[in-house]
Amino acid sequence: MLWTPDGVAEVRPLILMGHGGGQHKKAPGIVARARRFAAEYGFAVAAVDVPGHGDRPRSEEHNRIIAEMRTRAQTGGEQTPLLAGFHALLAGQTVPEWQAVLDAVQELDYVSAGPVGYWGMSMGCALGVPFIAAEPRIRAAVLGLNGAETSAEAAAQITVPVEFLVQWDDQWVPRAASLALFDLFASAEKTLHANPGKHGDLPVFELDSALRFFTRHLG
Amino acid sequence: MLWTPDGVAEVRPLILMGHGGGQHKKAPGIVARARRFAAEYGFAVAAVDVPGHGDRPRSEEHNRIIAEMRTRAQTGGEQTPLLAGFHALLAGQTVPEWQAVLDAVQELDYVSAGPVGYWGMSMGCALGVPFIAAEPRIRAAVLGLNGAETSAEAAAQITVPVEFLVQWDDQWVPRAASLALFDLFASAEKTLHANPGKHGDLPVFELDSALRFFTRHLG
Repeated sequence: MLWTPDGVAEVRPLILMGHGGGQHKKAPGIVARARRFAAEYGFAVAAVDVPGHGDRPRSEEHNRIIAEMRTRAQTGGEQTPLLAGFHALLAGQTVPEWQAVLDAVQELDYVSAGPVGYWGMSMGCALGVPFIAAEPRIRAAVLGLNGAETSAEAAAQITVPVEFLVQWDDQWVPRAASLALFDLFASAEKTLHANPGKHGDLPVFELDSALRFFTRHLG
Repeated sequence: MLWTPDGVAEVRPLILMGHGGGQHKKAPGIVARARRFAAEYGFAVAAVDVPGHGDRPRSEEHNRIIAEMRTRAQTGGEQTPLLAGFHALLAGQTVPEWQAVLDAVQELDYVSAGPVGYWGMSMGCALGVPFIAAEPRIRAAVLGLNGAETSAEAAAQITVPVEFLVQWDDQWVPRAASLALFDLFASAEKTLHANPGKHGDLPVFELDSALRFFTRHLG
């Protein structure tokens, strides 16, 4: 999916959005954000389905891990190591895929070949961290709703400006794990925004803040 | 001190700024912020010297506590209980003084008699918390660089929107104490912004954020 503003012929900076776990490239949150990014600030916004999500089939390995996560959820077992393994498996596919997406979208004559932004929460953060670490075109990132366990090594390689969102009462990501991930980023400019509420309750004003952050860093 | 924008005849919302420990109403940080608040966003900004600061003499009790804090600093003793006592002593004076300042400034025909904002870091946060808890005219506050020890009871009475700033490598305020103060606010809208750096290293973009926060809440 590629969103661009109506009736604007200028070349515009690209933002790639990574969707959350169980979601897809046309999930309502992705669409609503992409439309605002395009309409109000003139960004081009791209989103693709992660393997096993949206229009893309699950592999046998995906199904095996997801079944095991369901079992552990029912029996109260520890989810984090499984989730970290699942994210590592997915990142091995999404990092080169997303690099190819940048290649393709940046060939369009109305999309800037310059600095690119990345936006991703939850699984979109877990997969975004290794992607940003590997991809020098990404020059600013809004990340959040994820802990350090699933992407610690890559996080320590990130040096671009990061705006990092934490939900203070997140029922899935322990507060300490979020703060630990923020600590790991090697960026000279990184800013953590924490707000009350559960995993899905990001306040609307954080979208305004993300837009200003990208505008500041992608020009 | 009262700052207002040049050549604007309209009635404008008031923001009271509380200065930090050892500073005063005309400290460079206060002046720079007040000028931007007035010039770029049209706020009226007031600042007064806290007792024992700027043009106001220290009492014998101030001198006794300050001497004891110096001694403990040299001997490595625990500063927090002394500082909490000092702030409580000062707040007993500043809360009614600041209420009188609002009374006086809001009588000016170019200052709005409506909602007022409060901005205070460090000691300005420690004294601001009991002030905001006591003063219903304050409807939005930017606070930070202070921990829970010196104003816990009053913090739990605050229900107005709060933007709370934490310096992640603050050499004076432990991170856990800052997070504990943020936790105490009873506000439905509260947002924590944490940035790398020491006590005095607030990034410039937080001033932009504070201005947007006040604009959103004071209209």
